[in-house]
Amino acid sequence: MARKIKRRIFLILEAKEHKQTLSRACEYFLIFLIISNTLAVCIESIEEIFKAYEFYFIAFNRFSVGVFTLEYLLRVWSCTTLDRYRHPIWGRLRYMVTPLAIIDLIAFLPFYLPFTNADLRSIKLFGLTRFLQLLKLGRYSRGIKILGEVIHLRQEELILTLNIVCFLLISSATLIYFVEHEAQPDKFPNIPAAMWWGIITLTTVGYGDIYPITPLGKILGGILALLGIGLFALPAGLIASGFTEVITANKKLAQTPPPRICPHCGKPLDETLNNPTHLRD
Amino acid sequence: MARKIKRRIFLILEAKEHKQTLSRACEYFLIFLIISNTLAVCIESIEEIFKAYEFYFIAFNRFSVGVFTLEYLLRVWSCTTLDRYRHPIWGRLRYMVTPLAIIDLIAFLPFYLPFTNADLRSIKLFGLTRFLQLLKLGRYSRGIKILGEVIHLRQEELILTLNIVCFLLISSATLIYFVEHEAQPDKFPNIPAAMWWGIITLTTVGYGDIYPITPLGKILGGILALLGIGLFALPAGLIASGFTEVITANKKLAQTPPPRICPHCGKPLDETLNNPTHLRD
Amino acid sequence: MARKIKRRIFLILEAKEHKQTLSRACEYFLIFLIISNTLAVCIESIEEIFKAYEFYFIAFNRFSVGVFTLEYLLRVWSCTTLDRYRHPIWGRLRYMVTPLAIIDLIAFLPFYLPFTNADLRSIKLFGLTRFLQLLKLGRYSRGIKILGEVIHLRQEELILTLNIVCFLLISSATLIYFVEHEAQPDKFPNIPAAMWWGIITLTTVGYGDIYPITPLGKILGGILALLGIGLFALPAGLIASGFTEVITANKKLAQTPPPRICPHCGKPLDETLNNPTHLRD
Amino acid sequence: MARKIKRRIFLILEAKEHKQTLSRACEYFLIFLIISNTLAVCIESIEEIFKAYEFYFIAFNRFSVGVFTLEYLLRVWSCTTLDRYRHPIWGRLRYMVTPLAIIDLIAFLPFYLPFTNADLRSIKLFGLTRFLQLLKLGRYSRGIKILGEVIHLRQEELILTLNIVCFLLISSATLIYFVEHEAQPDKFPNIPAAMWWGIITLTTVGYGDIYPITPLGKILGGILALLGIGLFALPAGLIASGFTEVITANKKLAQTPPPRICPHCGKPLDETLNNPTHLRD
Repeated sequence: MARKIKRRIFLILEAKEHKQTLSRACEYFLIFLIISNTLAVCIESIEEIFKAYEFYFIAFNRFSVGVFTLEYLLRVWSCTTLDRYRHPIWGRLRYMVTPLAIIDLIAFLPFYLPFTNADLRSIKLFGLTRFLQLLKLGRYSRGIKILGEVIHLRQEELILTLNIVCFLLISSATLIYFVEHEAQPDKFPNIPAAMWWGIITLTTVGYGDIYPITPLGKILGGILALLGIGLFALPAGLIASGFTEVITANKKLAQTPPPRICPHCGKPLDETLNNPTHLRD
Repeated sequence: MARKIKRRIFLILEAKEHKQTLSRACEYFLIFLIISNTLAVCIESIEEIFKAYEFYFIAFNRFSVGVFTLEYLLRVWSCTTLDRYRHPIWGRLRYMVTPLAIIDLIAFLPFYLPFTNADLRSIKLFGLTRFLQLLKLGRYSRGIKILGEVIHLRQEELILTLNIVCFLLISSATLIYFVEHEAQPDKFPNIPAAMWWGIITLTTVGYGDIYPITPLGKILGGILALLGIGLFALPAGLIASGFTEVITANKKLAQTPPPRICPHCGKPLDETLNNPTHLRD
Repeated sequence: MARKIKRRIFLILEAKEHKQTLSRACEYFLIFLIISNTLAVCIESIEEIFKAYEFYFIAFNRFSVGVFTLEYLLRVWSCTTLDRYRHPIWGRLRYMVTPLAIIDLIAFLPFYLPFTNADLRSIKLFGLTRFLQLLKLGRYSRGIKILGEVIHLRQEELILTLNIVCFLLISSATLIYFVEHEAQPDKFPNIPAAMWWGIITLTTVGYGDIYPITPLGKILGGILALLGIGLFALPAGLIASGFTEVITANKKLAQTPPPRICPHCGKPLDETLNNPTHLRD
Repeated sequence: MARKIKRRIFLILEAKEHKQTLSRACEYFLIFLIISNTLAVCIESIEEIFKAYEFYFIAFNRFSVGVFTLEYLLRVWSCTTLDRYRHPIWGRLRYMVTPLAIIDLIAFLPFYLPFTNADLRSIKLFGLTRFLQLLKLGRYSRGIKILGEVIHLRQEELILTLNIVCFLLISSATLIYFVEHEAQPDKFPNIPAAMWWGIITLTTVGYGDIYPITPLGKILGGILALLGIGLFALPAGLIASGFTEVITANKKLAQTPPPRICPHCGKPLDETLNNPTHLRD
């Protein structure tokens, strides 16, 4: 009996495996709660609004911490339904160290710590952990799932291009530092500060808080801008192109065309191409 | 007789179905009037010019409101020519709630309201509705039609990427807020304000009105800029690529090549590939 | 005899048709002179340098005006060698109104006008016409020729996308004007001024001299930036993609592959595909 | 015996030809030393840190100079192992003038010059040569190797597009100079200064230190921004696209598919397509 309830609860929480009304309602409720919490964190940061509606914000926070705690406990309790986490103790512990479970825990745990409401610094950190709840959306949002897939798919190229970017950034920063340090010791005090110039210039953001003023620095900056912006766009471009690739692949998967057939013999073309013996028989 | 005139007027106003001199003259006149009105709104906003030529601007405005009112009335009167809007009352009402008809109405209606010329605030709003006339160009401009098609075509991907953008924007803004709030309480007073930083940085506009100054904020901003710009470029890139796609498709449609024919039997290649039975008969 | 010399001079000046040492020397000399003149215009604008070496700059200018005048006269005299401009008077006149000949003329003509050296304003204009000499490079530079080809090739799409850009620019400027005018009457005094904001934001340049400060203006600006940057990148992207297209086409032309042959009958595949009758005979 | 040791040392230093533990350890040690040195140059530039840990920085610098000197001497000594540099004197001299060997030498040589520690200006230059050690990474980093390949591969197009960029830059700068010089003589004092505006605007960096303020200058700047950004993105785009091309090519090389076979006769398809005689035999 308890096993049956546990199984039921597990399926409701997982949502995707069991397309029931209750399961979907639960999913939508949790998504709504996460988004509301994220919005609450955003709006709370506007001091006037927080002071005016402090009571409601705290009440809502307590309510959602309660819901998330319950959700977490139910997930841990019911996870033994899965074969992977079958063992009552080790299985549950192994479930608790999966990334999603850790995010779930961090999102509400600090609330129970005694000092959270005392010290202002820790309240801020608590706000940060509440913001981590947004990552819980990864369980539900298709967009964020695709983003995760893309980063995984392009892992190798991303590391390679980030290498190039680091190399370029250090080179640009060192060169501009040696050229501009004397003219603007307050803007280019050291190479790490020059890196801020490098990254803001080569991503073409260009705030204008720091820029070369000597003729040599301007020539150097111009050449770096001209050639570097393409290389700094590489990691971003890889993610963007991977994104459209994954979307297109998903779309094509949904509409697989009928198998191509040889016009001469009527047998499928793509399969026989590599084993002609099949044709000869 | 009245039906014949109505039909005539309808065809003249619709322009595309009836390539007559009068119809084309009417079309060009209306396009000219819309563009003149838009330019008039632009130039009127320069106070010195408006004061110097106030009389002409008002006269021109009254004239075009008159023309647009007449156009609207004629359109509503003659729309019953189309089968869809055949019913004298319900048909016309249904025509009046189509997006284009609503835009037509909004573009001149405020002029007839009594308070429009009294209160300064409402005059401004009136200027805004006059600007809506520009949307009427959608009826005539191929570019804007393509733009509408593209947004419709990429609807799904646009929503998906806008989801990612929102997720990234909230994440970036929350993180930078927690890092920079103490150092610059006036620039990063709350998370919504930090979002302005996020959107201006990640679209690489970079006005320079607000930027991180703490070392941690600069490192965070640099990493976000490096990885985020690709993702913020996704919706814009989708629209741009869709645009070129639609143009290319239109071009190809205009020059459809002759059907490919099998060199062995002379039958069309592409059609028989999937039904070889046709070949065997 | 005179005809033979004329023909000789024509071929030397045209360079491409007659790969002689003298012709090439003449070409390189003219290219060198144009680039030197452009650099001279640049360097002359630095007042200290101009004052220090005034004599040399003026001497060099006189020398190159002399050479360009001679070149122009020889070109006009010898152009009758071509069949198109055969007529001694009308042919030469027709040659003189070709774009390249007009640029040639403008580049040195102002020097002979009496007032050029008197009035400061006209000297400046004269500098501008001297800069036009740079366009003469179009005769020699492959890059600029390709650029011209690309703009011609993409004419239709460029006009279409520029339409969209104008539409977007007017819309953005009008909306931001109505939102920001009251808060920043000095920065957004009228709609044309708001267009400057629009173009600098939507091309992502973002100088920071003018930006929205009201919450509504920031939201509007953010949405416009997110969706508009893709559309503002369209004309630039068209030119860029056309450029790589033309380069690739030129490269492929240089290395045409052998014709594809049918594996079944040994006849060329691409030609017979569309006229199977040829096969059956 | 000495020859055997020399050979051994050569193989250890070259690393790639001899996959031994010692060779790999040596490679990792040198990479580590180069990166540490680069980081040291970065961190030393922060004056407070340098003053606090001066002794350790100098000691580390002396240590790495010693290692690099030893590495250089061993490389020069053992390079005669290669057939190309076989001659004991001329071979070694020829090795010493290869780019990588020159970089190796420059990276430590200034340290031995007597005046290096005396004059502040030369110490700075010394820091710059130490930074050149980063280029030594080119021997080991795959990313930088690919970058070199790409620049070599796209050499022709890069020169072509840089031509266009120069042409556009000079044109933009000259035009804006003639328009803005009178209104802002301090911001646009001469054409080279206007080029700084051109490069920062057309790469869309847009610091905001210099921008047009006259209506004509704004119109001109807007048009240049709209059309020029695509052309300024050409060199950067060429490098970026070449980069992804090389990565994809490397990936495909690693996973060559099995040869396609004709479904009719079982012979490889791609090879016989162009010599059908082979099929008929």
